[in-house]
Amino acid sequence: MDVEKLQRALDDFAEARNWSQFHNPKNLVMALSVECAELVEEFQWLTPEQAENVMAEAGQARRVREEMADITLYLLRLADRLGVDLEAACHDKMAGNAARYPVDAFYGSARKYNR
Amino acid sequence: MDVEKLQRALDDFAEARNWSQFHNPKNLVMALSVECAELVEEFQWLTPEQAENVMAEAGQARRVREEMADITLYLLRLADRLGVDLEAACHDKMAGNAARYPVDAFYGSARKYNR
Amino acid sequence: MDVEKLQRALDDFAEARNWSQFHNPKNLVMALSVECAELVEEFQWLTPEQAENVMAEAGQARRVREEMADITLYLLRLADRLGVDLEAACHDKMAGNAARYPVDAFYGSARKYNR
Amino acid sequence: MDVEKLQRALDDFAEARNWSQFHNPKNLVMALSVECAELVEEFQWLTPEQAENVMAEAGQARRVREEMADITLYLLRLADRLGVDLEAACHDKMAGNAARYPVDAFYGSARKYNR
Repeated sequence: MDVEKLQRALDDFAEARNWSQFHNPKNLVMALSVECAELVEEFQWLTPEQAENVMAEAGQARRVREEMADITLYLLRLADRLGVDLEAACHDKMAGNAARYPVDAFYGSARKYNR
Repeated sequence: MDVEKLQRALDDFAEARNWSQFHNPKNLVMALSVECAELVEEFQWLTPEQAENVMAEAGQARRVREEMADITLYLLRLADRLGVDLEAACHDKMAGNAARYPVDAFYGSARKYNR
Repeated sequence: MDVEKLQRALDDFAEARNWSQFHNPKNLVMALSVECAELVEEFQWLTPEQAENVMAEAGQARRVREEMADITLYLLRLADRLGVDLEAACHDKMAGNAARYPVDAFYGSARKYNR
Repeated sequence: MDVEKLQRALDDFAEARNWSQFHNPKNLVMALSVECAELVEEFQWLTPEQAENVMAEAGQARRVREEMADITLYLLRLADRLGVDLEAACHDKMAGNAARYPVDAFYGSARKYNR
């Protein structure tokens, strides 16, 4: 994923509409959480089995894909505003998770996973 | 960002711990929304001005970066599970946004933006 | 539920700690959403069947009850700050829902319910 | 607030539409979080000052009141399903908060509050 290209396009889009004034970190975090909830809305009444097959129905698939795009776009916008390198942050976090959850102690355990 | 490399690493991590059983789409969407709220928590009591400077304090900066990594990781995991190409979805969404929000009609307007 | 008594106690609590300065509506809405996510966290890895029995295990039951209290308290605090009568708002909303979802057209339908 | 009366009305409403099948705790928690985000949406682009005056504009005021009703209704529905007495839970939580946040140590401190 060309993160910088998407971030430049998002910045151009906001600048053209004079929307950068609204894109402070506090507001962007709220907008990110709202987009996330719009994705949750697509799944809230589905059984786990129906959720597994959510991409098999065209209307649902389109909405899920769009909400995931919205989440990605706000996440990239926020990262741009805060100067966070998401890919490096992901690698650091995964290294931390490997140390925090040793295979032997956490094998197959959702309860330990959750706590 | 090498999305596929991160997705393979996430899959290896989950498989090694037998956690893939928990990573159905319904659960992953919930986990994504929880991580998003943990980011919101970092900003909830800050003024917009304090939020602009959130990365200037080491402890806050570390937590914000970690929460953004968690969001990214669950988003990539979900995209992998659902077969969604996030980069293509982003480009499609941005094209749709350009058509939906013409510059002239939406210049500088948060109210129209929000509705 | 004695809403006014709880609201007075919340106000006294905030005033005693000089926290009312943080309790503006924008911040309270964020805090409410964070507490809601902490409740979601208790359910995210549970199967629907495990979720039905969440109150049977003492630790889970205590945490679920506490998170529901936190949600209620922030909701009451926000209502107090905005001058919203929650009980009257609920009755109005239920009357609206009865008109919006006629029994015949929506019987047993989650899809229509969701849209 | 007559919680039991509202809970009976919600149960009658769901039963009449055969919707109780969807109202398991996992789904209700998701729905609660979605309604909460719809409230966040009303505030996301507002400055703190605009947010203070959100009830002064009729359209915003109506939407905020409706979203707060939706949150309340799902919270009451979930409490009914899980057998949680919200008022008692609130009193217990407030007693715990008084012990956890002594006035002297937390006076005027958002940072300590948040951690």
